[in-house]
This record gives sequence, C-alpha cells and structure tokens, in this order.
Amino acid sequence: MKMKAQPYDIEVGRYEVILNALDADELGVHAGDRVQVKNRDTITAVVETTDAIVPAGRLGVYREAWEALKAIPDEVIEVLPASRPSSVSFIKKKMDKQKLTSEELHDIIADIVEGNLTEVELTAFVTASYIYGMDADEIEWMTRAMVKTGDQVSFDTHPVMDHHSIGGVPGNKITLGVVPIIAAAGLLIPKTSSRAITGAGGSADLMEILAPVSFSAEDVKKMTTKVGGCIVWGGATNIAPADDKIIGVEYPLSIDPKSQLIASVMAKKFAVGADTMVLDIPMGNESKIATIQEARKLARDFIDLGDRLKMRVECAITYGGSPVGRAIGGGLEVKEAMTMLEKFEGPTSFMEKTIAISGMMLEMGGVSARGEGQKMATEVVKSGRALKKFKEIIEVQGGDPNVTSETVPVGDKVATVLSPQDGYVLEIYNKRLVAVCRTAGAPHDKGAGILIQRKKGEYVKRGDGLFTIYADKEWKLDAAIKESLRDPIMYVEGMVLEKVQVV
Amino acid sequence: MKMKAQPYDIEVGRYEVILNALDADELGVHAGDRVQVKNRDTITAVVETTDAIVPAGRLGVYREAWEALKAIPDEVIEVLPASRPSSVSFIKKKMDKQKLTSEELHDIIADIVEGNLTEVELTAFVTASYIYGMDADEIEWMTRAMVKTGDQVSFDTHPVMDHHSIGGVPGNKITLGVVPIIAAAGLLIPKTSSRAITGAGGSADLMEILAPVSFSAEDVKKMTTKVGGCIVWGGATNIAPADDKIIGVEYPLSIDPKSQLIASVMAKKFAVGADTMVLDIPMGNESKIATIQEARKLARDFIDLGDRLKMRVECAITYGGSPVGRAIGGGLEVKEAMTMLEKFEGPTSFMEKTIAISGMMLEMGGVSARGEGQKMATEVVKSGRALKKFKEIIEVQGGDPNVTSETVPVGDKVATVLSPQDGYVLEIYNKRLVAVCRTAGAPHDKGAGILIQRKKGEYVKRGDGLFTIYADKEWKLDAAIKESLRDPIMYVEGMVLEKVQVV
Repeated sequence: MKMKAQPYDIEVGRYEVILNALDADELGVHAGDRVQVKNRDTITAVVETTDAIVPAGRLGVYREAWEALKAIPDEVIEVLPASRPSSVSFIKKKMDKQKLTSEELHDIIADIVEGNLTEVELTAFVTASYIYGMDADEIEWMTRAMVKTGDQVSFDTHPVMDHHSIGGVPGNKITLGVVPIIAAAGLLIPKTSSRAITGAGGSADLMEILAPVSFSAEDVKKMTTKVGGCIVWGGATNIAPADDKIIGVEYPLSIDPKSQLIASVMAKKFAVGADTMVLDIPMGNESKIATIQEARKLARDFIDLGDRLKMRVECAITYGGSPVGRAIGGGLEVKEAMTMLEKFEGPTSFMEKTIAISGMMLEMGGVSARGEGQKMATEVVKSGRALKKFKEIIEVQGGDPNVTSETVPVGDKVATVLSPQDGYVLEIYNKRLVAVCRTAGAPHDKGAGILIQRKKGEYVKRGDGLFTIYADKEWKLDAAIKESLRDPIMYVEGMVLEKVQVV
Repeated sequence: MKMKAQPYDIEVGRYEVILNALDADELGVHAGDRVQVKNRDTITAVVETTDAIVPAGRLGVYREAWEALKAIPDEVIEVLPASRPSSVSFIKKKMDKQKLTSEELHDIIADIVEGNLTEVELTAFVTASYIYGMDADEIEWMTRAMVKTGDQVSFDTHPVMDHHSIGGVPGNKITLGVVPIIAAAGLLIPKTSSRAITGAGGSADLMEILAPVSFSAEDVKKMTTKVGGCIVWGGATNIAPADDKIIGVEYPLSIDPKSQLIASVMAKKFAVGADTMVLDIPMGNESKIATIQEARKLARDFIDLGDRLKMRVECAITYGGSPVGRAIGGGLEVKEAMTMLEKFEGPTSFMEKTIAISGMMLEMGGVSARGEGQKMATEVVKSGRALKKFKEIIEVQGGDPNVTSETVPVGDKVATVLSPQDGYVLEIYNKRLVAVCRTAGAPHDKGAGILIQRKKGEYVKRGDGLFTIYADKEWKLDAAIKESLRDPIMYVEGMVLEKVQVV
C-alpha cells in the first residue's frame, strides 16, 4: 500500500510506525504486527494503530525509522505486511517452559539489542525467565550472547583482574580502594561499574565526583594498559548492551531474576577481558541475599559459570546487615575512601572489607603468596602506593590528581538527628537509610547523604548525635529530616516504636 | 520541580509524560515510574525519559495527559515523584505464584481499564496468568471485575438467551441463523459478537454487510426489547472493556490463556444480562481445542463459572476439523446464511449445526419441550418466521430489510482452482484456507473469500473445481491464487505433497 510519510519526532527505541485503523484493516495488520516500509531504503517496523492522530493514507513515522529511511515529509512510501522476528516464537517457547538453545538465546538477545522486539515481547521474555529461571546451559548461552552483541576488549598480558559486588548494602564504596590497591600491585583491573538505580550511589556515581566516567571499551583498554586500572561507567561503553534494555523491564516490576543477574555480571567481566575475579555477596536481612544457603548457592552458580567461560571466580560472602563504613552517598563516601588511602584510617567495617577483598585478588593474581594477600594489601596502602595509583587513575580519566579527602565537596546544608534516650544502637534499617539519602538528593546531588555517628552495638546518651544528614539544597534537607523522624533509621534500645493511645 | 509543558500529540492509552534524563535524575525517577503532574488539575502520569527529544526544564506531555490537564503550551507545571499503583504489587504477587484476592483482581482490572498500567506491567500480568493459569475463584473474581468496570444491561423479562463459539473453525456463520430463530420463537437474545483478529470474518464482520453494528449497551437493550434480538459488535459497546486491552497483549504473543478466554466470554454475556446460554466448542486438529478431553474440561469450567454467576450454561462440542458450510469470508458467508433462512437449503454441516444449537437454546429457554428443540427450530425456519425476524433485526439496526441472498454482493474477481487428479478429498487445511482468504482481502474486503466445491470425503475428477477464490481487487486475487498453489488448501488422495528431485 502506498502512503504519505509524516514524521513523529519521538524516540521509541525501535523502528515503529503509526497507521490509521482503516489502513491497518486494509493491510490486515494489528498493533504489534510488523510491516515492511520502503522508499529508497527498506526497513521492518512495528505497527501502532490510531483512530485519530494519523489520517487514513498517511504513515506516522517515529524518529528512529524516520532517520533510517532518511524520509522527507509527504513522500510516498510503500507499506507491506511483514512477519514477526523468529525470536518471538522462541520467547513463546520459554513461556511454555521449554529449554532454549544457544542459537535461540542469541537471536533473542540480538533482537533485544537491535530494538527488533516490542515492549510486550521483551516483557514476556523477562517475565517467563523470572518465573521459570534458566539452567546452567541457558545462563552460559545468554552470557555469551550478551558478550557477542556488544563491544569487547582483550589484553595482551594476563591475568586481568576484576571484582564485583551484587549490591544491596549501603555505603559499599570499596571499589575506590580495591582498584588502586590491585593496580598498584602491578595487576591489570579494567573496572566497569554501574550507577545507582534504587541505591544512594553506585561506584560510577562516586568516581564521577573525581573524574569523568563515560568512556568507550577501547578507552578502557588504553587507560588500563597505561596506568593499570580505571573505574568507569559500564553504561557508556556498549559492553553487553542487552543488559540495560532488560533492566528497563525488570526495574518497573521490581524483579531481579538470578539467571539474569549472573549472566549480566559475567558478560560484562568477560567482555572487558577479565579472567580472574572476586565476587562480593553481601548477606543480611535487608540486602538482596537473606540467608547463607542462598549466598552459597549463588556463589556456586557464579563459580560454575566462570568454569564454563574459563574464568577463575572466587566469592566473598560479606556482612550486609548494616552499612559499610559510616558514610552513605556521593562526596561523603569519596571522602571516607580517600581518607583510608591517605592515612589508613577509617571505620573498621570499610577498611577490613577493602583489605579482605583486595587480599583475595592479590593472591588469585599471583602477586602474593596464599595467606599473605591482606598483609600485602595493607602495605600497598600504608606505603602510599595505592593513593599514588588512585591519583594516576583519576588523572588518566581526566580528573584533578591534586584532590584530597579534605577538598572533596559535601553538602553545606546539614542537620544532625539526636538520640531520644540512652541505650545501645540495636538496629540500622538499610532501606530507610537509603530512602532518606535519596530524599536528601542522592545520587543526583553529589553532596547529599548521611554520615552515621553511632553504629550497631554502640552506646549512645540522650541528646547525642545518631547521624548527620547532608544536602545541597535546603528543601531537600527539610524533606529528609521529616522522613527520618517519621520512619526512624535506627533503633535505640528501649525506644518506643510506635505509640498507640486510647483517646 | 517546576517545568514548562510541551505537547506531544500522540495517543498512548494512558497518562504519560516525557522527561529529559537530567530532570529525571534530579527528581530521582526512572522510565516506568510515576509522577504527579499539577497545574489547575492534578494527574498521575507514567514517566518516559529522553536524552534528546525534550530539553531539560521541559515536560513533554502526550495527548491523554494534555487533555486531562487542559494544558497550554509553555505553561509552568509542577512535577513530583509519585508511587506506583498498588495493582503493580498484586501483579508481582501473581508472578510469584500466589493466589490473588477478589479485591486485588478488581484493582488490576480497573487499572487496566483506566489506563493506569504501563505495557510492561500489563504484559507481566498476562504472561504470569498464562503461565500459572487461574483457579475457579480467581476466574470468577476476574469475570466480575471485568463486568463491573464496564457498561451493563439488564432486562425486565427472563430468560435472556445467548450463545457463543470459542472459534477456530472457518465459515462458522451460525449466529446469522441462530439469533433470528431464537428471537422468532419469542425469546430475547442480545448478541454481541467480535470481529476477526486472525480469522476470515467474525460475526460482527458478517452482520456489518447487512447493517451497522456499532451500538452502545443501551442501544442493545432497546433493540432487543423491540424486536427480540440483535447482532452487534461487542467492541463498540463498552461492555467488559478490559478484554480488548488484554487481547492487545495476547495477540502479539499468539497466546489465548484459558482463564482469560473463559472470563472474557462470561463477562460479556453476564454484562449484557444473559442468564441462559449455549457454548459451542469446535474440536479438531487445527481448531483451538484438539482433543475431546480438553473440550470436556473447558465445558466443565464454563458450566462451573456459570453456576457461580447464576447463569445456566450448556456446551456443544462440535466438529471443528473442517469448515462449517462451504462459504468462508464476508459476502459469501452471508449469502449462505440467508439462503438457509429463505429456502432451508444449504450445506448440511452448516444447517445441522445451526439447527442443533438453536434447538438446545429453545429447550433451555423453555419454549420447546426437551428433545423437541431441533424440530421447532426447523419449523421456525421453514415457516419463514426466522427470515422475517432477521429482516426486522437488520431494519432495527439501520440496514435494508429488502436484502436477499441474491443481492448480497460478493467479489467480482474470481478464480477456480482445479483438482490436479482423480481421487477423494481427504483433508482440508483450515489454517491455510483462512490464510488464503485473508490474502484475497478478508475480512476487510467484504467480497473476498473462498467457496468450497468439494468437501472432505467427496470424489473429484482431474480438472474438476476444488474451490473458488473471490476478491474485490485483482492484485489480491492474484496473490491468493499463488498462495493457494504454493501451499495447497486441500489434499486429494494420491496427490504428491512435495517433489524432492536430485538434479
């Protein structure tokens, strides 16, 4: 059918066109079907239908398709029914609980990356994968497909180290310590990190306070080759790009399927050339993993997939029941990390975790004897070599190497919440803590966050500070204070949780 | 956050706005989250994010939200983060295999109807319902929710009859016979029908050749009260409107979950005031139900739900292995149906099915003794009362009551496909038959379709006509002929299915 093209300058993430319902009827297509659209070029596009927006005889064309066709308003375009990509039938297969083959998973992932699937089709895939899970073969195949459909890096020397935390615990800034320590010890560590989605700050958000973090895969290789390591934002690299699109569906459904988590982490590490890694699995009531059994199972799954990919993986099950260190959010976390590198001072929970993970990596990387890794990591920091390396990394990424823990900016709108009574701090509620940080402006406002004065088990007197909220904006500070009083972040022994009074 | 409004005149089926990624970051929201949008009015809208289309500081507003806000270009609008509707957590519950309550299902269905759910959320619900199914309670609750969230009709006199076919067999035009017979016998039958989605023509498509079919629920009541019956398009009535939105997700995934099928059919019948119905379950290789066990199970499920809703339901498991009658598609089917009403002549498969279903209904409706229904149905047709009633129905719907089987138009582009050899017709492939009808133009082109000359079991000589293709347009006829030769519709004994030659 011949139709006149009409642009709709909206991004939809795929080739998509709008047909009047009369024309759709005439063509025998429905919303969600595909059509072939031809002028000098030919593309396949998803159909939307309308009774109102686009008149009969006209073809509404969204931005991506318009650009691909290099279309001109009112030009005559040929539209023909087309069939669905075969990956849609593979998604149906997964919905019917059948195991997918390597080729089928590759087709699904490739079509996700290329924007050939509609939101309905992608969601059906993610939902079915969430419900049925995937077996070890499928996870391996999906991982390889995610690697292949994006950019890849390889290094001439080995080992190439990496570490990853599955997240879910606030204040987990250890990457800012681990990467400099490992690189200072002479190993390569091309670290890609994520930004916070629901948290107070991902490693990429933190590093961005010190230097740019958006680089191509090629840049990652160059910088790592030059100074031994880097800390960049994975989202900018086009490494395993399927992941972002899949997260775009998981996030609104608040799901995080294990199969997808494992494939996503390992694909990113594999694609960046890493062959040796330590996985941090924080375990605790409010973290992603609640029990030791679950944590061990997840560790085994990661190690098994590592075997299949010829990567050495070791896992550290860590305490995720309360924040790592005392600083949560942007500048506060960077300050805490830099203080450790400068003076080997700081909260035990943060220092010990950084040293422990670094020690495992130094041993796996073959630069330290078994059992000597932590000692070596400590020496690398105490000698100032880790700090020097961190400044090299900051510099190679385009940041200012003269930065110190003193010069890192934090919010100048500050309020300290005081203890209502004497007693021991018995509980810190991670989720509420993060919620208040976000209300204060994190991760967007780099100065926003919380500094904890009293941690679990510490004694506090009435009127002592429990924690301090930092914000860049007065109104966000006010909102955060209110939220922290309405929904307390900490439980001090003897505190009344809620008053129920008979009036 | 204060932002300047900018209209995007596209229908998206819900309140939706576009934020620049920088503003989304500042607000702490992601694509798929909700925001509260306020000017003089306040609405909750779904967030889309962009790096390019909408600049920072501006809020792109799609048509539905723009109209609800009565917004003015560039006016300053307040945007605040908002929480997701609680139905999203109920969808999550279903994804986790938990049974939903009546209230939860009602909230989900109401949010579907009101456009409060995103495509991701709706698809997750449909996919999880497909995978886990629903128990009898859930199906009842969903049915009641679908009824409540749309228009309803009730009649002062009872019984109110109805019938429904779950479809999947071509040429099933019996509604055009059943409705006049039942109404002529003095019973009420407010029949809502669907249009073809993947078929060659639904009852609404067929009736539309004779009269308008788009009416409100109130009109359905008026017309039925006046002449005893009507045949309208359900999609225009706002009866159980959730169904269309759910089908919008099922169609692109090629799924038809049983729970959804049952709830959808029964909700439509219940909402139109029917209390007594016959369900036609065509069974056969290429129909929706392949085995008698499956058919019986489905029949029981319908009857059980009928009990819960205080509706009397009987089921007819019918032969779905080959077309009903000889005519498939638009005008050809209408001609066949009218010929039966005019002269009680036509293909046995069509006449017998019409009389059998009508007979069951006459008995259930209490106007015929048990065992005498078919005889009565036959008399109603032979006496000319059914034809007279059909013309009244056509007239009350605004059509021309002088129409006859002779005057119904069919396509004037015609080609007959001949048998390549002598033998018995052993197979008619329903799906290919429908595909060729659609290529010829059905259901959009009302004259398009196929008339079968030889049915299963009939003997044919080489050169005899097997079937005739009708079309309104020459190029569609050509395409249909080609398709029917490439992928034969019939198998004549001894025919070579495919030649594989060594060259």
